[in-house]
This record gives sequence, structure tokens and C-alpha cells, in this order.
Amino acid sequence: MIPTKAYAAQDAVTPLGPFNFERRDPGPHDVQIEILYCGVCHSDIHQVRDEWGGSIYPMVPGHEIVGRVTNVGAHVKKFKAGDLAGVGCFIDSCRVCSNCEAGLEQYCDKGMTGTYNSRERETGAPTYGGYSTQIVVDEKYTLKISDKLSLAGVAPLLCAGITTYSPLRHVGVGKGHKVGVMGLGGLGHMAVKFAASFGAEVTMLSTSPSKEADAKKLGAHHFALTTDKATVKKLQNSFDFILNTVSAQHEYGPFLDMLRTNGTMIVVGIPPKPSEVPAFNLIMKRRSIIGSLIGGIPETQEMLDYCADNNIVSDVEVIDIKNINESYERMLKGDVRYRFVIDTTTLK
Amino acid sequence: MIPTKAYAAQDAVTPLGPFNFERRDPGPHDVQIEILYCGVCHSDIHQVRDEWGGSIYPMVPGHEIVGRVTNVGAHVKKFKAGDLAGVGCFIDSCRVCSNCEAGLEQYCDKGMTGTYNSRERETGAPTYGGYSTQIVVDEKYTLKISDKLSLAGVAPLLCAGITTYSPLRHVGVGKGHKVGVMGLGGLGHMAVKFAASFGAEVTMLSTSPSKEADAKKLGAHHFALTTDKATVKKLQNSFDFILNTVSAQHEYGPFLDMLRTNGTMIVVGIPPKPSEVPAFNLIMKRRSIIGSLIGGIPETQEMLDYCADNNIVSDVEVIDIKNINESYERMLKGDVRYRFVIDTTTLK
Repeated sequence: MIPTKAYAAQDAVTPLGPFNFERRDPGPHDVQIEILYCGVCHSDIHQVRDEWGGSIYPMVPGHEIVGRVTNVGAHVKKFKAGDLAGVGCFIDSCRVCSNCEAGLEQYCDKGMTGTYNSRERETGAPTYGGYSTQIVVDEKYTLKISDKLSLAGVAPLLCAGITTYSPLRHVGVGKGHKVGVMGLGGLGHMAVKFAASFGAEVTMLSTSPSKEADAKKLGAHHFALTTDKATVKKLQNSFDFILNTVSAQHEYGPFLDMLRTNGTMIVVGIPPKPSEVPAFNLIMKRRSIIGSLIGGIPETQEMLDYCADNNIVSDVEVIDIKNINESYERMLKGDVRYRFVIDTTTLK
Repeated sequence: MIPTKAYAAQDAVTPLGPFNFERRDPGPHDVQIEILYCGVCHSDIHQVRDEWGGSIYPMVPGHEIVGRVTNVGAHVKKFKAGDLAGVGCFIDSCRVCSNCEAGLEQYCDKGMTGTYNSRERETGAPTYGGYSTQIVVDEKYTLKISDKLSLAGVAPLLCAGITTYSPLRHVGVGKGHKVGVMGLGGLGHMAVKFAASFGAEVTMLSTSPSKEADAKKLGAHHFALTTDKATVKKLQNSFDFILNTVSAQHEYGPFLDMLRTNGTMIVVGIPPKPSEVPAFNLIMKRRSIIGSLIGGIPETQEMLDYCADNNIVSDVEVIDIKNINESYERMLKGDVRYRFVIDTTTLK
């Protein structure tokens, strides 16, 4: 067994603190990774605080993991000691349903096994995430990471990156398209980078005038303040796609109206309560709304390779694990540009 | 000018009654049609009663029109006297926007000109619909009708038919697909016929057990009572597409859950208030919702030709114009299988 240092939540209300546990020794198909960086996702806070229900404690959060392979099982082919490797939101799935067979493990009919706050399929043991020094994962669910990019900036690609890359690819965003991105946070800033990189004309749709300069630095061609009624009206029928990353409660109607005929709003944010959708706004221009959840293993690898080839990383603020609780508070105030990433060597 | 007998609403509350007016003489591009049958659409009632606002009185409703050409303008190429012809929901559009150029006149950037309760683009004169003996329409907005089918059964294809045919074609429904149809009315009964004809396995989703026999006669392979919780649960993750024709207020969530990964709900009914859509239900299986409005002229012609080739018509109850007000009351109670069609020779 592999002694592992971590930070864990012991319950829904106590701040995260040091926690020691053991990882399994690598099995024949496993990769052992020394974690170097782990991104901090907003869903970490939801789960730590049991806001979605069913949280398992102690909980070691973290599903934006990059590190270096230190050991591999006898049958492992993709990795060898010394390689860089990544782990995203899930570390297993049923492997036999049509979704798993199609490389859409995130939609596994039996439910994917989360990287943390979940249970191993065979043993039922709780899974522990990336706020830790080591992780052992089946190579099938482990991603190859290029050494061309800043490792800290790569970590958030494993969730924030793939969550925005996958739907933009699925709907076919490219040259000649006008794309609106709602919300400039961890997801939104990656959406702007990808949409611009795919050749689209990108407009940042935000309620904060202060974000204009940043949005343009990230690659947005235009900035629109959606608290301004005249702006909202002017944007009617103008976008082919809108990527909606907002998880605060909001109306879909005015944004649907910004879509052209055949336009699509991609939803990746989950507001606390259902949003009202006026059928009229959909029907009058054959508009659609589609949801999307992270991405499967093959597409996550494709995204990582694309980022390496196109020099795309997340904009991050690297933190010491000791500052994790303070970082959660800052995230809740939107005070991060645009992702905290834990330097996990500070756990040692 | 052409003397025309009709039934009209004089205001939002008085029953429809006889009304005489004159149609324009056919211009160089016009077709003059002696109307033989006109279907009665639920939207006739909404507009007669000014439930959508902005109604123009006197109003001659009717946009499911079939008849025989009696005269054509000098430049008309598609029609000659004696031909059968049809007119659907619109009789003009801007003709130059990208939607009009793509044959999607129903989404015209400047707004299509409705067959009734609208205003002619050049003169501003009110348009009068098919509860009348004659109509004069530009040949571009006139459809060719086969003589192979019952004319009365063809009339509702011009609205109820194309409204369901178009989105089923747009999303590519065919062999191997499981399709649910919500609501067995004018739209729903055509949706069942088309989806079955395209090779899909069709399930009627209804709240009325009494509709099972009819649904199966129309071509549905299965019937599911959506008031039964166990049935709803059993149907989770089972359809590739759901065509939602329901215009009564209802929740989308439980029906979205019936869609498989990548499944799509097509919305053609407009409930009085916006429906709540839980983002979670969309995201967890990459499900989507798409709206659709009737169909353009080229696709309407394609649909009519398809129906002639495949012997598809609407199930209708032919009525005398004198019974139109009573028929409205019966429609509001759902007491029609599945479309009233006016024998417009009863206007004479």
C-alpha cells in the first residue's frame, strides 16, 4: 500500500485539513502517479459542503490532476515511469454499455465512477481525489500529458477544459460562426479560448463591465454587457451558438432570442432551480438548447493534444494547500482569474 | 375584383358568421383558387379570440386550404386552370433574407405574411384565409396537390402535416430510432403517421387511456400512459426523439428523462406559460430541446409529394360551415378525431 498525504473534508461544515491514507498498490492495468498539480473546481465546494446530497466523508476532493508516473502495472502499455499523466473527473465506468463503447464514458448507463466522492466499482471503497500526493488509476482512464505546456495550466483542462471543448466540437463550432459565451469564470475563460482558436467570432456576454479587458485578452473579439437592455436587443438573432456556463439562476429566454435561425444554446452550468424556457422563443427560429457533461476519455485526450499543439492552457493562480479554505471563499466571490491550482508538493 | 363568400369573426367574442368581401384579380404571378376544403386549426381559435393579441377584424380564419385553380396570371408557370392547389400558413415573405433564400420562409427575418390575420406586404390590406370560397395567391407560395388522395384529408397537411413532418426530417428520424409522440390531437396523429412511415418504432405518450386503440390504428407500435409513475420510470433513457405537440402547461423534466444519450425533444406546442427545464436533465445525457415552426415552401411541397406517394392523409371530420362555432367548442374539449375540415362549398 502507498502512504498518501492529502487534505480532506471531515464533514460538510468543517474547513479542509490534513489527512493521511493509503492508495492501493498498482494492479496489472494501473498507473501510479505522483501528483504535481490539482485544479480547484467549483464542484469541489458543492460536494465538500454536501450541497448536492450524498457526500461521502472523509472527502479528498480534486479532479483536475496532473503528475508524473512513478510505477506501472505489468500489463500497462500507454505509460512508463517518468511520463507525465493526467486524471479527470472519473476513474472508471461499466466499460460495456453503448456509451462506454462509444468513448462517452461520462454518460455510462451504470454511472461513471467519480475521481472522488464516489465508490470503486469492485470494492465499494470510497474514491479519493487530487488534493493528495499520489493516485493509482487504471491506464484506460489516465490521460497522456505533453511536456510542452505549463503543467499547472494544464490541470484545469481535465475538467474546465474538456467541459467546454467537447460541446463546442460536438456542435461543430468553427470559422464563420458567431459564438457568445455567457459567464467569464473557470469554464467561460476556456470557452473563449477554444471558440476563438476554432476560428469563431467570439462575444463575451457578461454582467460585469470590469471583465471586458480580460475577455479580450483571452481572445474574445467583442464584449457585451447583458445588463444593458439596448445591448440585449441589438444582439437579437445574432449568434450561431451560445455557450452558457452560468450556474447562478437566470432566464434563458433573452439569450435564446440572441440566437439566429437554427442557433443552439449549449448549457454546461446547472442553476439551483430549473430555468424557464418559453417554447415560443425556440419555435420561432428553430432554436435549440443542448446540455453537455465533461467529455469521454478519447475526446479528453484529443483536447489535451489539441492544447499542446495550439499552446492553450488555463489561466491559473497556483496556491499552497494551506490556502485551500481561503481559496474556496475567494471563488465564491468570483475572485479568481480563472482557476486556483494546488501545488501538491506543498502537501509533503 | 372577385366576389367571395366567407365566414368571419367580427370581434373576439361574437360567434363567426357570414361575411362577403372581394379578392384582388390575379396579378401576373398569381393563381386564383376556388377553395374546396379548409382545415380548422387550433390556432384559428386563438386568433379569433385574440388570445395572442393584435388580432385584425373582421377576420376570416383558415390556413389549411385546398382547391382547384380557376385562373392564372400571365407569368404563372407552375399552375394552369383545372389543377389542384394548396395554400398553407403564409402567402408571402420578404423573399431576399437568408432564410427566404434557403426556402425557410417561415423564419423570414422580416416576418412571413400570414394567410389570415396579417397584412399584405405592399398594400397593408388585411389578409383573409380559407373559410371562404376563393383565394388569390402568388404561385411561389402555392403548393401543387396530387389528385391521388382524398382532398379533405389533404387540407390539414398544409399545417398539421408540415409542422410534424419538417422537424422529424430535420432531426433525421428513420429506421432504428425509437420515437415518442406526446399528445394525440391534430398534430400528434400526423406525427405518429409520419414517424411510423419513416421506419421508426413509435410510442404514443398520452394521459388518456381511451386513446390507445386509436394510436395503434394510426401506426403507433406502443402506447404509454404518462399519468402512471411506474410507466414513466420504465421509459427513462429509452427514446431517441420525442415529438412534443402538447400546448397545455406541462413539465418537460420527466419527458427529457425518457431520452437516451444524445436524445432530442422536438417542441411544436406552445404552452401558455414558459416550461421549467432542469439543466441537470439535459446535461447528464447530452440531451437537447429544439423548437420547430411549420415548414418552408420547398419542404411543404416535398411533404405533400411524400404523402401522395405513401398514401398519407389526415383523419378528418368534414363539416358544414354552419357548424364552425360548435366545432370550436368541440375542439376545446378534445372532441375531434383528429381534424375538422370545412366543406367550403357549403358557403355558397
